[in-house]
Amino acid sequence: MAGAFGFKSCQKIRGPQIRNLLEAKDFFLFDCDGVIWHGENAISGAAEVVNSLTRHGKNVVFVTNNCTRPRENYVHKFSRLGFTDVMLEQIFSSSYCSALYLRDFVQVSGQVFVMGCDGLRRELEEAGIPCVEEADDPGATIYDCALAPDVKAVLVGHDDKLTFLKLAKASCYLKNPECLFLATDTDPWHPLSSGRILPGSGSLTAALEVASGRKATVIGKPSRFMFECISSQFSGVDPAQCLMVGDRLETDMLFGSNCGLDTMLTLTGVSQIEEAQEYRNSELTTNHSLVPNYVVDTIADFLPALEELEEEGN
Amino acid sequence: MAGAFGFKSCQKIRGPQIRNLLEAKDFFLFDCDGVIWHGENAISGAAEVVNSLTRHGKNVVFVTNNCTRPRENYVHKFSRLGFTDVMLEQIFSSSYCSALYLRDFVQVSGQVFVMGCDGLRRELEEAGIPCVEEADDPGATIYDCALAPDVKAVLVGHDDKLTFLKLAKASCYLKNPECLFLATDTDPWHPLSSGRILPGSGSLTAALEVASGRKATVIGKPSRFMFECISSQFSGVDPAQCLMVGDRLETDMLFGSNCGLDTMLTLTGVSQIEEAQEYRNSELTTNHSLVPNYVVDTIADFLPALEELEEEGN
Repeated sequence: MAGAFGFKSCQKIRGPQIRNLLEAKDFFLFDCDGVIWHGENAISGAAEVVNSLTRHGKNVVFVTNNCTRPRENYVHKFSRLGFTDVMLEQIFSSSYCSALYLRDFVQVSGQVFVMGCDGLRRELEEAGIPCVEEADDPGATIYDCALAPDVKAVLVGHDDKLTFLKLAKASCYLKNPECLFLATDTDPWHPLSSGRILPGSGSLTAALEVASGRKATVIGKPSRFMFECISSQFSGVDPAQCLMVGDRLETDMLFGSNCGLDTMLTLTGVSQIEEAQEYRNSELTTNHSLVPNYVVDTIADFLPALEELEEEGN
Repeated sequence: MAGAFGFKSCQKIRGPQIRNLLEAKDFFLFDCDGVIWHGENAISGAAEVVNSLTRHGKNVVFVTNNCTRPRENYVHKFSRLGFTDVMLEQIFSSSYCSALYLRDFVQVSGQVFVMGCDGLRRELEEAGIPCVEEADDPGATIYDCALAPDVKAVLVGHDDKLTFLKLAKASCYLKNPECLFLATDTDPWHPLSSGRILPGSGSLTAALEVASGRKATVIGKPSRFMFECISSQFSGVDPAQCLMVGDRLETDMLFGSNCGLDTMLTLTGVSQIEEAQEYRNSELTTNHSLVPNYVVDTIADFLPALEELEEEGN
């Protein structure tokens, strides 16, 4: 297979190649936005693909940098969009993994200041991690507001209610070198259906990195940590048996490379095949980690191969 | 003198060396915050130094990355703090120079979207540059708000009323490659007297650079543009006759180096002499541009030399 020799052709694969791949892998990691759905619309055929993979006994997990919703919301959304039986345990969001990092990995003792939205805060609280309450005082300023005395971590995520005061408070907490600095992810922006763009966690993280003079520890893709969360919850995951499917070279493909997984770019989202080819042709070898092993137009391209397998009673 | 051989000893200078320097230079550029004053308190002796330099026929200008106030406010503040006869023409703020850049250098035709405070907007409007009016609708979101059709530049400065909506709007305007992207300065943060810190323009610029995937053109120090503004308003300025006095290595000293000026670090502000020595000892030669030619504890160290000169009737 293409990946076996370390050379990534970055070509679209079709019928028999897809079938070989589906037979060779037993653990499928899917990004959500741009791969499984666009907002409230499932990618055509995506539900059938996921349902069929599960019927074939494949492990399927969802690995998303979207930190705005708690995992239960994902379960409901999958069900609403026709994905049958997607369970809480299959969902690895950057907010959930941030909670695991704080609770299990560093065993934070003290409060966490969240520069992010309510969904992120809710995920932490469900894991038993206390978050600083945001005072609802529109007249407060960084000159005179109260600062919590026991903040042991600042966590930045997507925050469409960002204010200067939140950014300034976070900067002040980070003056304490013992206060951890985490980012759910570094996605720079997200496309809106109107053609507008939404600044992402990466944008807010950059602001705080400059203001604090520190670098954030990143939880989400492309960092390896989310794969460690998956490995610790599914025993015996073999990277060689995994396929990471995503729409963004800088997060999904790099995440796969960082974790030793074969990667597949689907063209229903942000990145284009030409960008992947540019990275492939780049003289900077670090860029080669962003090149997918495989490319499909959409994950619905899995369907014919899955139907064949079904007809053969596999 | 130290600077003449290209070697910067980064040592404090005293009496006779200061006197030699004052005699050798005829154009003094001072940063304000941390050099001339801290907030509303003048550095002890600073007014006497500036008044005396002017009496000796030296040219004195103030070069500040602080973009929050129009220049008239500076004139009033100087007067209030005992600096006699500081004129509008001596004040070069990054907001004023941004207005010059937009009006004279690129001759912008269309509106400017300002992610900054009222003082910056006012400076642009005084230069005749139309700015997008900020609608005062607290319920507006990037999903449904109006965007102005003729925005030809986005200008980022210090903005203590930053909101996510402003950041998102700026990101959307910058999708148009013909829309200029300017930053008044890239100061990362500013110290508050309480020990807290205030995220600076550099922090907000970083957020917008990530969200837009573009790099800002920087107007303020360390960019050369402010010296070009000074040169165009004071004919015959000779860089060899100039001394740039500041408290921040990464802006003031680098600005001086970039413009071919001798530089002096004063220790009443942000940077410490140890940081300067680290840059001096660094193997990265680019770091040597951040090393001052001279160091003083405070610009009040000029006073004995100035008094000597006065007694001699110079």
